[in-house]
Amino acid sequence: MVLFRSTVSTLSFLLPAIVMHLVHPVCGYASGPLPSWNDGSAKTAIIEFVEKVTTEGSEGYVVPEERVAVFDNDGTLWPENPIPFQMAYALDQLKRLAPDHPEWRKDPLLAAALDADMATVRGQLKEVVGSVMAKTHAGMTTEEFNRLVRDWMARAKHPRFRRPYAELGYQPMQEVIDYLRKNGFRIHIVSGGGADFMRAWSEQVYGIPPEQAVGSIGAVRFEMRDGKPVLIKEPKLEFVNDKDGKPIAIHRHIGRRPLAAFGNSDGDEAMLEWTTVGRSPSLGLIVHHTDAQREYAYDENPQSSGRLKTALAAAKKRGWIVVDMAKDWNQLFAKPSL
Amino acid sequence: MVLFRSTVSTLSFLLPAIVMHLVHPVCGYASGPLPSWNDGSAKTAIIEFVEKVTTEGSEGYVVPEERVAVFDNDGTLWPENPIPFQMAYALDQLKRLAPDHPEWRKDPLLAAALDADMATVRGQLKEVVGSVMAKTHAGMTTEEFNRLVRDWMARAKHPRFRRPYAELGYQPMQEVIDYLRKNGFRIHIVSGGGADFMRAWSEQVYGIPPEQAVGSIGAVRFEMRDGKPVLIKEPKLEFVNDKDGKPIAIHRHIGRRPLAAFGNSDGDEAMLEWTTVGRSPSLGLIVHHTDAQREYAYDENPQSSGRLKTALAAAKKRGWIVVDMAKDWNQLFAKPSL
Repeated sequence: MVLFRSTVSTLSFLLPAIVMHLVHPVCGYASGPLPSWNDGSAKTAIIEFVEKVTTEGSEGYVVPEERVAVFDNDGTLWPENPIPFQMAYALDQLKRLAPDHPEWRKDPLLAAALDADMATVRGQLKEVVGSVMAKTHAGMTTEEFNRLVRDWMARAKHPRFRRPYAELGYQPMQEVIDYLRKNGFRIHIVSGGGADFMRAWSEQVYGIPPEQAVGSIGAVRFEMRDGKPVLIKEPKLEFVNDKDGKPIAIHRHIGRRPLAAFGNSDGDEAMLEWTTVGRSPSLGLIVHHTDAQREYAYDENPQSSGRLKTALAAAKKRGWIVVDMAKDWNQLFAKPSL
Repeated sequence: MVLFRSTVSTLSFLLPAIVMHLVHPVCGYASGPLPSWNDGSAKTAIIEFVEKVTTEGSEGYVVPEERVAVFDNDGTLWPENPIPFQMAYALDQLKRLAPDHPEWRKDPLLAAALDADMATVRGQLKEVVGSVMAKTHAGMTTEEFNRLVRDWMARAKHPRFRRPYAELGYQPMQEVIDYLRKNGFRIHIVSGGGADFMRAWSEQVYGIPPEQAVGSIGAVRFEMRDGKPVLIKEPKLEFVNDKDGKPIAIHRHIGRRPLAAFGNSDGDEAMLEWTTVGRSPSLGLIVHHTDAQREYAYDENPQSSGRLKTALAAAKKRGWIVVDMAKDWNQLFAKPSL
């Protein structure tokens, strides 16, 4: 008992820290939340929203289990140019595998992709993408695919930024994710990208676990192979998680309407509507790529990956935050960890 | 500072409790875990499995984020006789709405359902179910459907047990859910039932939130109605979450292979294989309905809802726990809360 009391006494100096941790696990930012955001209306609106929904007793208080935030990925959490990173993966795999498949040269769509014949690629974009995806995203188990994507993420580099793709998450958006998470939000990616592709790295890159990565769905079939159960990826797209598909996927996977939605293109408009229209409190945010110097500048240009036209008009009507990347963000990517 | 020290001193008697809570939030059951389970091999196997995967430093230790458990619903967490409860809901709704739809009488399938013409129903089961589901599970928003199901759950009673369906969760299985949850598992329902149907009550009945209820999927479409976004349920089944569909749905929704799977019929066999075959540690469990006195007794009978034939043979081969409901459970349902 003496020993016990002595232990209590020895440990008691820790008590205030423990109690603070129990009472308010989120307290304290060295320089406030969102340090990579310049002061301005976007940053203020995010912080005010979070404070409103987390302040017990306030009119806008929302219980933690309803604090769901959804983020588009390409163009919202990391770049989508010069081509979406999943397409870069597919082309790298196609080139890597091509020597073993001379027959691919006879397929004009695959040949165009292998030769970077941009006239053909642009003219038949959907068909080329379909052919490339069938050769690089199917015919293997989900576990093999996961390993291939992880291997690629560990070595491939972005052609302009010369850094591994895993280091190209936007630091300001990562701060929003962390800030929301610390305030009791559950974060889901809701992306047009393939769910299987994203799950190979979403935890490493954003801290978002596989079960919270919602994406487009390729068919898989279940079978026993050498006595072990496997799921084989098939060359068939079963669900496209874009436009109206986003609220539908949110309903299917999450089963709750989100409290906050973040996107950057017309493909995210329905998701932001589903989240915000007629609902208060709620938050919608559009990342507007205005920064040709540090990243890319585009909106209506249909040649760019991602297109922002109707969603920009909707933002005005719906009161969504529009982030001016060049003005609002004082840092684009996290500093290299080296 | 004196005040501060004094506060520390006053609170310090709480320290052991706080530290225990931080270190081991799961300690202590008045009478051990799983009180509604009789001592025996099933109960022992569950407890040994949980202790193995949660004991840090042991060979079988599994990090908390990989502790995923999946449960079939009908026949595993609550009864599935005389008919699945979702079908009972559909028939009640059909009868309620029929007076406004005299044209339904002209459809022989709907008429058979309304008249409980069991010869026709049994002879064309799939067609009758499809017709009934189309009339009772479509043509409304997801929110309206959710409300209708909740209303029904609040008033409808099971024909044999004379209790609301929400009170018919098996108490022993609820104890397994609670025990796993307290040991860091995330619990998902993976059921052939409709996801939209289950999400209306899964939190109330089992404490399982909507995002962790995986089921069969009916089509929905997104539209703006009176200026507000809605999802309209359509009379089309998009995904049947049974047999091979279960590992596929687990892959889609969870993106990890579970550590433990619980089922009661051949429809769960692929899910248990996916969870356990070639994987250690892992746990598979089959509830065998052997209790005609308190509930129902059935296995191979194709007339019963649920059928247990190949999965019972597989259990022996794969080392799955087979629960003998009559012998292993000392209580079936929770005592009424009145």
